[in-house]
Amino acid sequence: MTADTITAADIRINARWLIPMEPANVVLDHQAVLVQGERIAAVVSQEEADARFRARETIDLHDHVILPGLINMHGHAAMSLFRGMADDLPLMAWLNDHIWPAEGAFVSETFVADGTQLAMAEMLRTGTTTFSDMYFFPEIVAQLARDAGMRAQVCFPLLDFPTPWGSGPDEYLSKGEEFIRQWQDDPFIMPAIGPHAPYTVSDGPLKKAAALSQSTGAAIQIHLHETASEVADAVEKTGLRPTARMAELGVLGPATQCVHMTEVDDSDIQLLQASGARVIHCPESNLKLASGLSPVQKFLEAGITVAIGTDGAASNNDLDLFGELGTAAMLAKVVAADASALSAHEALAMATIKGAQVLGRGHELGSLEAGKLADIIAVDLSDPFLQPVYDAASHLVYSNHGRQVTHSWINGVPQVQEGKLTRIDVPDLMLRVQGWADRIREQQSS
Amino acid sequence: MTADTITAADIRINARWLIPMEPANVVLDHQAVLVQGERIAAVVSQEEADARFRARETIDLHDHVILPGLINMHGHAAMSLFRGMADDLPLMAWLNDHIWPAEGAFVSETFVADGTQLAMAEMLRTGTTTFSDMYFFPEIVAQLARDAGMRAQVCFPLLDFPTPWGSGPDEYLSKGEEFIRQWQDDPFIMPAIGPHAPYTVSDGPLKKAAALSQSTGAAIQIHLHETASEVADAVEKTGLRPTARMAELGVLGPATQCVHMTEVDDSDIQLLQASGARVIHCPESNLKLASGLSPVQKFLEAGITVAIGTDGAASNNDLDLFGELGTAAMLAKVVAADASALSAHEALAMATIKGAQVLGRGHELGSLEAGKLADIIAVDLSDPFLQPVYDAASHLVYSNHGRQVTHSWINGVPQVQEGKLTRIDVPDLMLRVQGWADRIREQQSS
Repeated sequence: MTADTITAADIRINARWLIPMEPANVVLDHQAVLVQGERIAAVVSQEEADARFRARETIDLHDHVILPGLINMHGHAAMSLFRGMADDLPLMAWLNDHIWPAEGAFVSETFVADGTQLAMAEMLRTGTTTFSDMYFFPEIVAQLARDAGMRAQVCFPLLDFPTPWGSGPDEYLSKGEEFIRQWQDDPFIMPAIGPHAPYTVSDGPLKKAAALSQSTGAAIQIHLHETASEVADAVEKTGLRPTARMAELGVLGPATQCVHMTEVDDSDIQLLQASGARVIHCPESNLKLASGLSPVQKFLEAGITVAIGTDGAASNNDLDLFGELGTAAMLAKVVAADASALSAHEALAMATIKGAQVLGRGHELGSLEAGKLADIIAVDLSDPFLQPVYDAASHLVYSNHGRQVTHSWINGVPQVQEGKLTRIDVPDLMLRVQGWADRIREQQSS
Repeated sequence: MTADTITAADIRINARWLIPMEPANVVLDHQAVLVQGERIAAVVSQEEADARFRARETIDLHDHVILPGLINMHGHAAMSLFRGMADDLPLMAWLNDHIWPAEGAFVSETFVADGTQLAMAEMLRTGTTTFSDMYFFPEIVAQLARDAGMRAQVCFPLLDFPTPWGSGPDEYLSKGEEFIRQWQDDPFIMPAIGPHAPYTVSDGPLKKAAALSQSTGAAIQIHLHETASEVADAVEKTGLRPTARMAELGVLGPATQCVHMTEVDDSDIQLLQASGARVIHCPESNLKLASGLSPVQKFLEAGITVAIGTDGAASNNDLDLFGELGTAAMLAKVVAADASALSAHEALAMATIKGAQVLGRGHELGSLEAGKLADIIAVDLSDPFLQPVYDAASHLVYSNHGRQVTHSWINGVPQVQEGKLTRIDVPDLMLRVQGWADRIREQQSS
């Protein structure tokens, strides 16, 4: 070994276990990840790392598993300020009597900024490095994520009616197009189009959303088949199931992310499959709001790409994607009547490489491979009550929760170190959150 | 206020929130619990506590909610040593190729002792103060729980075939009767009868189990309606659904705990209701093994008492009852197609007062009331990602996990203080666990 075969690296991470996601279904022992700048330079055995690399900084994670940063593909970040405000209510009572009045009273640029920062802090702390958001004031969310160095798909809202962000479809679409142009070349921010749902957006604006997606390459994310009544009402009003209507309007395609997808029949699956549309599974929200069950295993068997999201903390009530993975993997088994459905590795794929593919960034995110962007997390498995460790992938999905995450890097930059957030001032954030909570509590009790 | 109105107490616990469970559906602010000896002397406001009591020791829990210790009504504690050993497998492959060979190779008095201690440590750490166990060598489990000062219902096994604990039904029943006589007056240990399942125990031994329950007052716990195929096979072989067969054999009654109860029809519910039999709900095990869905809301509407259990860590894969409560509350809503089904308070009741009632100890366990035994836990809600706190009960069920438990007392004795176990030597336990894990890993890969 001569000196000129030695390569410099910024960071070397030594880990007891490593789950690369590509290749799939593999847990590797005693690996090293070398990071140079914003990218992964190599994923090699620790012996090979000794021989080939010299790093400025070495981090030894003797009891940890490292894996790609998680991708949370659906949420409404600012709603974290409504966490646990109203539970155990039928969907319409929850919306009419609690969420909508509270949104009417409080949603503003400052509310969105503080609520989104609370959500980003929780997501970073629990292993998420990329999130998708659909809420008002997307330009605030995009700027906050960019400032924090977190990746985000930010969907601007599109509805038939006025909201704090605009007067109606025409204004949403014109502001939205400007928003897309502004951010579409940013390596962290993926601007996207967020028509709320088939029952809140008419044919005209939906066609324009499809055209805007075509002309800009921006993705479309839409709540679709969230409940049985949505599907039944649509059939009554339009003669078409919501998925069929989306297909007719030209909304379904590889750039379209269909969130929820409960109450699915074979015709829906065929349309998703034929169009290349993606599914975003939100199991805990689907359970807690009694929305329905999503046939994840059938989607996988049909070759449809399924990613995962927590939905907002107001309906869940946390943004811990590891907890969501456990629920997803357990629930898929009973829905499929097959205990081998959605394995731990397949669940992890939903939160990593599949999420990256849905974002159109499977070539540079979602796995630990040389050349990809350095979005990496470490999870400590030394907790006595995670013992024994026969299979680190099993523990991540079935026994773990996000608070065991100790480290994360996005684009090679540390975001969590020894369990502490490096770039968000949590005490200051907590003061702002308490201020909102006091005002919201007062409004709810009045 | 004169001196003779002041009462002495051993411990005073001041808490930001208190959920007494009785009365139901209440979260109280700024309460104090006074403990004298093994019992709760009073639950009063902090002002009243100042006026009426002087305590030897005062513990201030400014960010915590206190509630009765949790009761985990179904598990196989020693199987913690198989945690995550084999997942994502159909039930029979899981049993035939992994669990049964491993049990055959390893189950012994020492295995049961070490595995049970691992489980007890995890349960204590995550808020459980009373657990139910069904495994081999119940006398070991009873002694270990007693030594640790933990309450346990310990069910001796009853099956048609030989196991490491006995040669067959006659020996199980005679050893079991002796086990009951030995422990039935102990304040910590509730000896019980554990016929494994309708398909592994014939009519004769089941009738004898019922008679033994009658003569001793010991409870019966049985796996019942775990899967659809169990019910279908039973109808084919016996002409009766398993619940109906249990009723015919005299096994159903208020002392009988029916574990799982998926695949339930109206006739089953009527038999449970008429007999006073209890249901133990194990939602995560039912999901992960693709067993089926249990109609919890229907049971509650029929006035059937439903408690909750984690099942063993080999099929779950943890013993965190708070996580189980979240799954139970979310799942019940989609099963009932009603987002108001199984509220956070109702879920907490399943893990406290309902568990106590199932054990026949509702008069002295399961709520924070003067005169009851001092089984108390505290959960820290100060974590940034549990903010805001609008409703402590909601957070316990929907946003929390058991690691936020900071304190527990059983019978007035501290078991967890500042998140540390006081009575189990965790480092020593970990050495023994690693020893078993190494041997099991070797056997599984051979």
